[in-house]
Amino acid sequence: MTENNTSIREKGLEAKEAGRRLAALPYETRQNALKEIERQLRADEDKLLAANAEDLAQAEKEGLSAPLLKRLRFDDHKLADVTAGIDSLTGLENPVGRLQMRTELDEGLILDRISVPLGVLGIIFESRPDAFVQISTLALKSGNAVMLKGGREALRTNRALFESIKEGGKKAGLPDGWIQNLESREEVTEMLALDDCIDLIIPRGSNAFVRYIMDHSRIPVMGHADGICHTYIDKDADLDKAVKIAVDGKTQYPAVCNATETLLVHQDIAEDFLPAFKKALSEKHTELRGDETVQKIIDVKPADDQDWKTEYLDYILSVKVVPDEQSAIDHINRYGSGHTDAIVTENTEAAGLFTAGVDSACVFVNASTRFSDGYRFGFGAEVGISTSKLHARGPVGLEGLCTYKYILHGNGDIVADYADGKKQFTHKKIAVK
Amino acid sequence: MTENNTSIREKGLEAKEAGRRLAALPYETRQNALKEIERQLRADEDKLLAANAEDLAQAEKEGLSAPLLKRLRFDDHKLADVTAGIDSLTGLENPVGRLQMRTELDEGLILDRISVPLGVLGIIFESRPDAFVQISTLALKSGNAVMLKGGREALRTNRALFESIKEGGKKAGLPDGWIQNLESREEVTEMLALDDCIDLIIPRGSNAFVRYIMDHSRIPVMGHADGICHTYIDKDADLDKAVKIAVDGKTQYPAVCNATETLLVHQDIAEDFLPAFKKALSEKHTELRGDETVQKIIDVKPADDQDWKTEYLDYILSVKVVPDEQSAIDHINRYGSGHTDAIVTENTEAAGLFTAGVDSACVFVNASTRFSDGYRFGFGAEVGISTSKLHARGPVGLEGLCTYKYILHGNGDIVADYADGKKQFTHKKIAVK
Repeated sequence: MTENNTSIREKGLEAKEAGRRLAALPYETRQNALKEIERQLRADEDKLLAANAEDLAQAEKEGLSAPLLKRLRFDDHKLADVTAGIDSLTGLENPVGRLQMRTELDEGLILDRISVPLGVLGIIFESRPDAFVQISTLALKSGNAVMLKGGREALRTNRALFESIKEGGKKAGLPDGWIQNLESREEVTEMLALDDCIDLIIPRGSNAFVRYIMDHSRIPVMGHADGICHTYIDKDADLDKAVKIAVDGKTQYPAVCNATETLLVHQDIAEDFLPAFKKALSEKHTELRGDETVQKIIDVKPADDQDWKTEYLDYILSVKVVPDEQSAIDHINRYGSGHTDAIVTENTEAAGLFTAGVDSACVFVNASTRFSDGYRFGFGAEVGISTSKLHARGPVGLEGLCTYKYILHGNGDIVADYADGKKQFTHKKIAVK
Repeated sequence: MTENNTSIREKGLEAKEAGRRLAALPYETRQNALKEIERQLRADEDKLLAANAEDLAQAEKEGLSAPLLKRLRFDDHKLADVTAGIDSLTGLENPVGRLQMRTELDEGLILDRISVPLGVLGIIFESRPDAFVQISTLALKSGNAVMLKGGREALRTNRALFESIKEGGKKAGLPDGWIQNLESREEVTEMLALDDCIDLIIPRGSNAFVRYIMDHSRIPVMGHADGICHTYIDKDADLDKAVKIAVDGKTQYPAVCNATETLLVHQDIAEDFLPAFKKALSEKHTELRGDETVQKIIDVKPADDQDWKTEYLDYILSVKVVPDEQSAIDHINRYGSGHTDAIVTENTEAAGLFTAGVDSACVFVNASTRFSDGYRFGFGAEVGISTSKLHARGPVGLEGLCTYKYILHGNGDIVADYADGKKQFTHKKIAVK
């Protein structure tokens, strides 16, 4: 235990040192490393697939369910997907070294704010092995060292991926230790305690899993536990749009965090909307659970208080009739998870009240909650979706893996001159592109 | 205890609700409230000064030290200072509602990112009562509700300030409960547990105090425990600038976090620099503690490993000779607190190596570490200085009290159309000013 402790701590310190050296490398080295890693993964195809076959064989023996086996599989298609992903990542802009702000404090005293990597990322994810590649290359693109702990079932696959990525990075001259692979559950516990080495933890997995991580570390965690998203159909909604958006929000892909879980309907439109919605939904095999008013209008199962708090991630939708827009906003702020909520309305004032009043990362007008996603938002890559208000909120792209640094260039400048009144600050903002 | 618990929780929920209503108010209401608060404080001068006189009398009876009594004093000068502070705050730009990013996802589907208030701030500070006014008006300017806990010695003064600020806000139509005053130590413990009400804790006080807060809450904390700042004199430094910058960094105001605590000197310049520096420093009554090499060049007390880790906040400076620039960078990254570090050099390459290699919020070239400050940086107001890398780093202005929200405006748009290939995203970035 003590020995193991030391070893994880050493991995953390090694990653921290490597992160600093990575941050100081030219961008070309990181770009070149992405290409080398892509090549290496292709060259190691046989090894990778063999390792995955062993994981699959053991998982089958242990009776893993069919959907989990499917997630665990890493075949030639998955390999093609991850290498294509690296290719597209290589094409994105460099998130590091961006000039965010420039101010002339005084003549010859120039303050810059530039983006820099966070340092070390700690990533904990469940069984999909392709995530190992995606996450480690996102870290590299943004100049961060990374410690990864994948699912137990994918142990051999992750180890083989780790070796390939390390080898590719080595060929491009990355510092040793920039990527660290953790394999046991005990190592995760120890990793969560490395608050002097790791700058950000990103957990990927079930609600319960993410919540556990958030509750057991002093390191900042980026992500979301729940995604309880709402669509509110205002009295001034266009009925066709309302039906389309509500159906899409629930059924386009219900197993994900940005799917609509609760529909709120203004009482003035409920009698028109609900039957039309039910009809449109009928071919989607979706179970509706309604409050008493809803039950009077359409035939649905009853909803109770627990339904407003539930992320079904399934073809189930809770429906509630509200007396006015403010009640809808209050319901969302009370039961929602601050992820994504939409209003359908043709009334500009109602739209403005909703976007101002709903305290969520993403607030949509006349669009499906399913748009809440880094790729759809045009970020090119998605690191995750954050329901925290600090640092990055909502869908997070590469910039969420960066912080900034103030750099001041002077020429012998001292504060005493300003304190004495000999000199005055000019504080001229200089436009940056 | 249970009753008290409920009451703090109720204050938290009340603040959360008020924060949401505050965020939805027009900017003019918040600006007008700042003016009303300024007027009210002036009108209540007699009450405020009387309350402070009582606090002072009790503190004297309890034997509070002279410097602490001075910090506790709230007289007509302090009142003039805080009202002038509100006046200047009123003149700053609105940090809320700024359009940070606009992207056309597709024709008629526009994604905006705008700044919004965080929600509820929790502020815990030691004895200076003027901080009560500064912090609550910073919160108001940025649209946040605020829960404040001041020092025990200033109980009556803070209570009087609280009443005036609340009254001024009421006249301007602020929602009840936007400002909450906590008075007991037990209330702080309970406040630190309100992670579903409070979005950000800002502690102001000693290192030990800030560290205690950071260790005892799951709510994000913005601030810094230590400020161990370094000035590195490179071999290519201009001697005059080096002496000026080192003297200013240490002695211009040593009791603050951005004062230089350790001087690192390249061995090639040590024999020229150290005697000149010691001479320049002689009138400042500063104690020097040097490593062995320093001791051979000038007459100083010996420094040990503990000195490199110490924030003196006093006229004491540790000095170390380093064999090369990388050793200086390594020393800073090992012993520093990620706050502010400076290099003095005429060599552009050495400056670039330093700004890239030092992992601190502020990295300065040929300027005193004392410039690290929100006012000097031109932010108009300073919320604090953060050594965390997440959210806000370095000196933090009003923007550090804000988060952002994505607002998507569509016209009945659904994801199924893009998943089916019927439509394609355009992802056109639209320039924002």
